[in-house]
Amino acid sequence: MSAPPQPLRLGIAGLGTVGTGLIQILTGYGEVFAERCGRPVVISAVSARNKARERGIDLKPYRWEADPAALATAKDVDVVVELMGGEDDPAYALVKRALKVGKPVVTANKALLSKHGIELAKIAETTGAQLNFEAAVAGGIPIIKAIRESLVANRLTRIYGILNGTCNFILTEMGATGRAFEEVLKEAQVLGYAEADPTFDVGGIDTAHKLSLLASLAFGTRVDLAGVHVEGIEHVTGEDIAYAGELGYRIKLLGIASQSDQGTLQRVHPAMVRVGTPIARIDGVTNAVMLDGDRIGELAFEGPGAGAGATASSVAADIADIARGGRSLPFIVPEAKLKPVQRAPMAGHIGMYYVRFRLMDRAGVMAALTAVLAHHEVSIESIIQRGRAPGEAVSVVLTTHECTEATMQAALAEIDGLPTVMGKSNFIRIETF
Amino acid sequence: MSAPPQPLRLGIAGLGTVGTGLIQILTGYGEVFAERCGRPVVISAVSARNKARERGIDLKPYRWEADPAALATAKDVDVVVELMGGEDDPAYALVKRALKVGKPVVTANKALLSKHGIELAKIAETTGAQLNFEAAVAGGIPIIKAIRESLVANRLTRIYGILNGTCNFILTEMGATGRAFEEVLKEAQVLGYAEADPTFDVGGIDTAHKLSLLASLAFGTRVDLAGVHVEGIEHVTGEDIAYAGELGYRIKLLGIASQSDQGTLQRVHPAMVRVGTPIARIDGVTNAVMLDGDRIGELAFEGPGAGAGATASSVAADIADIARGGRSLPFIVPEAKLKPVQRAPMAGHIGMYYVRFRLMDRAGVMAALTAVLAHHEVSIESIIQRGRAPGEAVSVVLTTHECTEATMQAALAEIDGLPTVMGKSNFIRIETF
Repeated sequence: MSAPPQPLRLGIAGLGTVGTGLIQILTGYGEVFAERCGRPVVISAVSARNKARERGIDLKPYRWEADPAALATAKDVDVVVELMGGEDDPAYALVKRALKVGKPVVTANKALLSKHGIELAKIAETTGAQLNFEAAVAGGIPIIKAIRESLVANRLTRIYGILNGTCNFILTEMGATGRAFEEVLKEAQVLGYAEADPTFDVGGIDTAHKLSLLASLAFGTRVDLAGVHVEGIEHVTGEDIAYAGELGYRIKLLGIASQSDQGTLQRVHPAMVRVGTPIARIDGVTNAVMLDGDRIGELAFEGPGAGAGATASSVAADIADIARGGRSLPFIVPEAKLKPVQRAPMAGHIGMYYVRFRLMDRAGVMAALTAVLAHHEVSIESIIQRGRAPGEAVSVVLTTHECTEATMQAALAEIDGLPTVMGKSNFIRIETF
Repeated sequence: MSAPPQPLRLGIAGLGTVGTGLIQILTGYGEVFAERCGRPVVISAVSARNKARERGIDLKPYRWEADPAALATAKDVDVVVELMGGEDDPAYALVKRALKVGKPVVTANKALLSKHGIELAKIAETTGAQLNFEAAVAGGIPIIKAIRESLVANRLTRIYGILNGTCNFILTEMGATGRAFEEVLKEAQVLGYAEADPTFDVGGIDTAHKLSLLASLAFGTRVDLAGVHVEGIEHVTGEDIAYAGELGYRIKLLGIASQSDQGTLQRVHPAMVRVGTPIARIDGVTNAVMLDGDRIGELAFEGPGAGAGATASSVAADIADIARGGRSLPFIVPEAKLKPVQRAPMAGHIGMYYVRFRLMDRAGVMAALTAVLAHHEVSIESIIQRGRAPGEAVSVVLTTHECTEATMQAALAEIDGLPTVMGKSNFIRIETF
């Protein structure tokens, strides 16, 4: 037998739910995890904003580091685990400094990577340091490794999914209980599923961060967060969810990246998906990722998108890879080989649409509305109009056959300007996966 | 820049659909695949039973090796790719010989691994050779890597799935068309979904091979094929499928491995799964694998279980891992650390049951049947009995509440001996995932 392998020593920055969950895994599992990694994995030092906060774990065995950036150069730290979050400093400074000195980094920080990922990948490549980020997308689902390592013999043409548990929880609850968005959001905050400031989640930005990383990995392109078309779920009403059900759909916030002759289209928006499709029955905080490849055909992953255990499980897997000496580039190919994204314009997107209008109850209003659609050559698939009390505003819902986004937007702008149409129409794209 | 990396040279044994698919990937993709692997991957030599067979690919660029075992020691071969199949020689001799000289092996051969996997793993460990087998289970689904590398921070307690596309195709078609087993089997053979000798597939043996590998990886135990309880789909009738639908179930051939206080239970048998559950809607040749871990909760994978492209995609991923210098042990931990399986007896399995009886149309037959069940303390959940012409045999279907397998078998043996019961009762286990 050769000499026993050296332990791998971690420096953990950020002790929120994921950091705490990671420490629980490492302390609770000790020997089994070491056997699977081929060597012991130990924690040397930890750092967080607030040392005194009660976390339910004993931090005494670990050196406390007041300045997280110091972990990058600490002699007793072999791997930096960045779990602070935030797209810029202190996370950025810490990760950059560690990679520059050739120290491997594991991070769950999608905001950081979607902004600085390519720069950091280049540094990692130069110094030979690993940069692993399984936990940055879809929590416990091993989608990053799947694309990085398992699907390398495929040309991937599309990747999409439910990437934000908060939004999916809110939409599921709205559908199940008929309650309004604001009310369910408050419940999600109480349950810890939504942040005090929910903008990143409900506005679709968190999904955009994750989608931009998936698209880069899947298509071999540079991360292009600015190229993502982003709409959140704030305008989805209980009425829309009820109509969707009546039409045989569920509403989900999707991130969809696809490649076509027009280029790469990355879009995040609420979408109606047909009841009975796999993605339609992903409820609550569960995430799902679906992808299409030329060899593999369709592949689907479902699992927990968040939560201390699931996310820490992915962080621990990244650490295990480093412990075993695994080597893969952050974005699969060398940074210089990543192509710039040729953005396909959202205006050119072709799809079906659901639109809800509020019309005055007056003769000829439907004729005026449908005339505009006909003029733009938007073909109507179905119309729902309910009986109503005379003189009241009436909701009209229609679904269209396929047309371009540009056509639909032009038609809606004209319709919203009609004197008989009250307020702004609400539209939701229909996806026929 | 350092010197350009050396190409990785393959010797491929077996040129069926998967071998041919692999050559198509390597020749069709060249540069992209090389970028992703960090070095070119080339084919030095190939070997198959029949050199002359038309395969639709040009074999002239590769050295033909009449004896596959010679690839193990060939100087121009860095990696042996074993795609011949079969649990013993020549596959066994080739793989063993290659590993013994420290040459990495990629194989899709579940039969070989479920019989000799532990011995081969030990050799691989001794010489430091990689032994990768992603394509051996669930075709294109990267389930081996997920368990080997992504879920190492979990105690997995259960893994189950639809692991044989042939059986799932047959059951799906029987359900959709109402045709009989034998007829659909013939169609599957014509379509190339079933072998000329379908015993391995429809008898559940192929699923057992795969399940034994998954259980070993998931639970850290030695592969125990002999411990798998195996039943095939030969006795599932169109009548059973129709009744299942009426009761809100689908019938699937499942492989299920679980750990409890009683030990490890590995079972392969037709099962009724509730309509609306993820596994119930896996149709055709698609495979699915579901697993439960203490950190991750539930994780599900769905994708193509077979086919040249999907399976070759997994083989190519294993090759890419070796090209990048990735290192992981065949069964995650060293062979000496793999525990022997403590077999939980099938008799102790607790579940619900569907049973179909053929009874004589005579007064008191139901009373006699239900008396036996009551005597064995098997509680009935539902009964379906159709009206029939007087004097004819009548089908009675019932579902039970939970009881042990031993209880159910004892009750059925007694019922089958009643003079008013015609033939053997047909039972199918109900799974409530």
